[in-house]
Amino acid sequence: MNRYTSLALLTDLYELTMAYGYWKLGMADQEAVFHLFFRKPPFNGGYAIAAGLAPVVDFLEEFSFDDSDVEYLATLTGNDGEPLFESPFLNYLRNLELTCDIDAMPEGTLVFGQQPIIRVKGPLLQCQILETALLNIVNFQTLIATKASRISAATGGEPVLEFGLRRAQGIDGGLAASRAAYIGGCAATSNVLAGKLFGIPVRGTHAHSWVMSFDDEQEAFAQYAEVMPNNCVFLVDTYDTLEGVRQAITVGQQLRKKGHKMVGIRLDSGDLAHLSIEARKLLDEADFSDAVIVASNDLDEHIIESLKAQGAKIAVWGVGTKLVTGYDQPALGGVYKLGALKDADGNWQPKLKLSEQPIKTSLPGILQVRRFEDADGLIEDVIYNETLGLDENGLSVDLLDHSNQKKSTREIEGYDLLQPVLRNGKVVAEPDSIETVRNRAQDELKKLRPRYRRLMNPHIYRVGIDLKLHQLREQLITKARQPNN
Amino acid sequence: MNRYTSLALLTDLYELTMAYGYWKLGMADQEAVFHLFFRKPPFNGGYAIAAGLAPVVDFLEEFSFDDSDVEYLATLTGNDGEPLFESPFLNYLRNLELTCDIDAMPEGTLVFGQQPIIRVKGPLLQCQILETALLNIVNFQTLIATKASRISAATGGEPVLEFGLRRAQGIDGGLAASRAAYIGGCAATSNVLAGKLFGIPVRGTHAHSWVMSFDDEQEAFAQYAEVMPNNCVFLVDTYDTLEGVRQAITVGQQLRKKGHKMVGIRLDSGDLAHLSIEARKLLDEADFSDAVIVASNDLDEHIIESLKAQGAKIAVWGVGTKLVTGYDQPALGGVYKLGALKDADGNWQPKLKLSEQPIKTSLPGILQVRRFEDADGLIEDVIYNETLGLDENGLSVDLLDHSNQKKSTREIEGYDLLQPVLRNGKVVAEPDSIETVRNRAQDELKKLRPRYRRLMNPHIYRVGIDLKLHQLREQLITKARQPNN
Repeated sequence: MNRYTSLALLTDLYELTMAYGYWKLGMADQEAVFHLFFRKPPFNGGYAIAAGLAPVVDFLEEFSFDDSDVEYLATLTGNDGEPLFESPFLNYLRNLELTCDIDAMPEGTLVFGQQPIIRVKGPLLQCQILETALLNIVNFQTLIATKASRISAATGGEPVLEFGLRRAQGIDGGLAASRAAYIGGCAATSNVLAGKLFGIPVRGTHAHSWVMSFDDEQEAFAQYAEVMPNNCVFLVDTYDTLEGVRQAITVGQQLRKKGHKMVGIRLDSGDLAHLSIEARKLLDEADFSDAVIVASNDLDEHIIESLKAQGAKIAVWGVGTKLVTGYDQPALGGVYKLGALKDADGNWQPKLKLSEQPIKTSLPGILQVRRFEDADGLIEDVIYNETLGLDENGLSVDLLDHSNQKKSTREIEGYDLLQPVLRNGKVVAEPDSIETVRNRAQDELKKLRPRYRRLMNPHIYRVGIDLKLHQLREQLITKARQPNN
Repeated sequence: MNRYTSLALLTDLYELTMAYGYWKLGMADQEAVFHLFFRKPPFNGGYAIAAGLAPVVDFLEEFSFDDSDVEYLATLTGNDGEPLFESPFLNYLRNLELTCDIDAMPEGTLVFGQQPIIRVKGPLLQCQILETALLNIVNFQTLIATKASRISAATGGEPVLEFGLRRAQGIDGGLAASRAAYIGGCAATSNVLAGKLFGIPVRGTHAHSWVMSFDDEQEAFAQYAEVMPNNCVFLVDTYDTLEGVRQAITVGQQLRKKGHKMVGIRLDSGDLAHLSIEARKLLDEADFSDAVIVASNDLDEHIIESLKAQGAKIAVWGVGTKLVTGYDQPALGGVYKLGALKDADGNWQPKLKLSEQPIKTSLPGILQVRRFEDADGLIEDVIYNETLGLDENGLSVDLLDHSNQKKSTREIEGYDLLQPVLRNGKVVAEPDSIETVRNRAQDELKKLRPRYRRLMNPHIYRVGIDLKLHQLREQLITKARQPNN
């Protein structure tokens, strides 16, 4: 497929032209801090689940420009037709080894708007050239883990199977989605390669083409049962759905006589509420009350809620397109912003990006997130500047309403969310197993009160900006808006 | 990253359970035909651009189950805890070599609803296990090539730069999107790895972080100009956009004195209509009428149309998220359906999938698409059954309205769209270069009358179902609906 041995060029060109500039100007090794964050949870929801760290660590461990990368870069030209990059710079890239420090939220952590998910500290050039790949990986996996958690919430604990590979956005769009969907709460995937690579359970039985390959539907089911007597979920809607259920029951009875058990049936079209209720009746009447009804067909959390409200008798939910593409919001708008730069005297200078939209004005400095919880669950998070520390009186302003100042219950100590991952370019904390990550996401969600988890119009979980950080930002805004600055 | 040496497992598990079933029942080598098609062009548009064939051919050429694949499959168990697959079947897979015949529309061909983009003919088992990967690749690339052509249409020929990698759906979601966007009409990408792998032009200059890394904006621009005097597109909205334009002009004047030329400025936030008009005035007043204004920020074809209607002075359009994810429709609903199966006597038996939704009832047989055009452009397409041939009187019914029967102007000969790609598993037509494909898409679009290309509510281009094919389908529907069939 896309034959690449190195992913160092998985980046926007401007990262490399900037890197070239920093290198030419002797700024390549100036110490910098960048933060990766999104501004607003996706899907109009109240939270997101941080995901993508393990692939990021893989990427960082393998990060290196190989010969073919620099040979390609040497072919690029500017507007004057001259080479874009000098060859000493390309040699520099060829020999570059990462020496960054990286801190990140463990995968599966609940994350809210403006909170750094990853913090990269190190030489300015290195921090800069990692931007695009980190965003690519974290934006997408966080989006899909969050979508999966919403869909799993809608089924109320009934298993969700991720069936999206054929509609996913490319190969890795499928693989990364299967991984993130499992983290977010899916029970299994249809994607066999994801099963192999990530150790995720895989599921699946047969398609319409199986049924069409035999003279009639009953023969198709009977032959399937012959071959895989213990793995029979019959797809019943190739011709007429309820007639298909009857055919499945006939074959289920034959299976039973032979000492096997029909696992269930699958509906893949039509009115799933009506058909599942009617199918359930037929199955129960035939003494197949333990046969499950699996349903699929353009499902998402809202359709699932509606089907459940209509009394649909669906026990297992197959969700594809709308899960793996995050259909109603197919991208998380994560960004990667410079927070601080060390000056010639070795002092960190906080940096600010202004915007006419207040939410887009960045938080300056080296940031950390302190989370406070008690026995009943999460209370609030406070984003603070690590250089300044937390305000001694526990004061913070609300992220979305700076006039809303609050004193934290600081008898509770809280804990910091960003944890060391790389030091001097070397991994200091191996990524968690996918099961650990998935369990963490489930545990964290339980700690979030239901009103914040609501799928529509959730209550907003309080994220404060520590008062010292807030005041620093205000000062920098004032300074930046002075004329001739 | 996702370390895979083989992509044979890039499939839904049910393809493999069905394959196992066919193998057990001695049906693995029964000849079959499948068609890959979508039902409706994406984005409520009038057409799509077929894309993804070259990566499909790469996938097919490399298709093989390796040791690690079959070792993984050997670990899978059914509901009884026993291995899902017998080991002779796994040996069969390990030694499997594709022997299919594949015909496909050349990449860059205009394609409409229900038309096979790819036709796979060969042993039933082989046809089946290719389904998911083919859909994954073709669905996404066709979607994005189409989106790119719509965005390029909206700019009226002004260059579109694809900037989407950071918001793309995973690594291949980014790479595949860059490739497809170029096919659909984009002028270049920011994605350096896509440039390297696919030979696409790459573009980019600097980000806000560059500006923030200096004491003030003017110094940032001046230093950039120092390093890359012939490649200066200054991003002017880090602090105050129009003030930024003035700083860019100052540095542009310094550049000019040194014999260089400022290429332009970039706007990345705010009211792009207003800001581009004001920036244009400032640039023109300062005698920089040849400096271009590049704009980006959540653009898509509709926003671009609106900006142009407002008189925005934008010459180059940077489009990211909404292009590479197909934002308003992030998946093409392509499907892969059995068309015919050869019986024991060696006769092709056409196969039908019924549905309560008429559009979902499949077209039976071995299909081909005949396109008719004259000097003024495309006239109509007719989907026909290759075994039956075209109706002698040139009659066809409209795809969406079977009561609408029409006689084609058959003095025009027309040409078939599906062309041989693989014979007996071997590539017989090397994929076209990406430039050839991109040019084909442009040429084909020119042949489509404007009313069919309209972005909103287009006129529907006529796709007919040849009368013989239509009558066959009607017969099969009647037969399938007979009781006890």
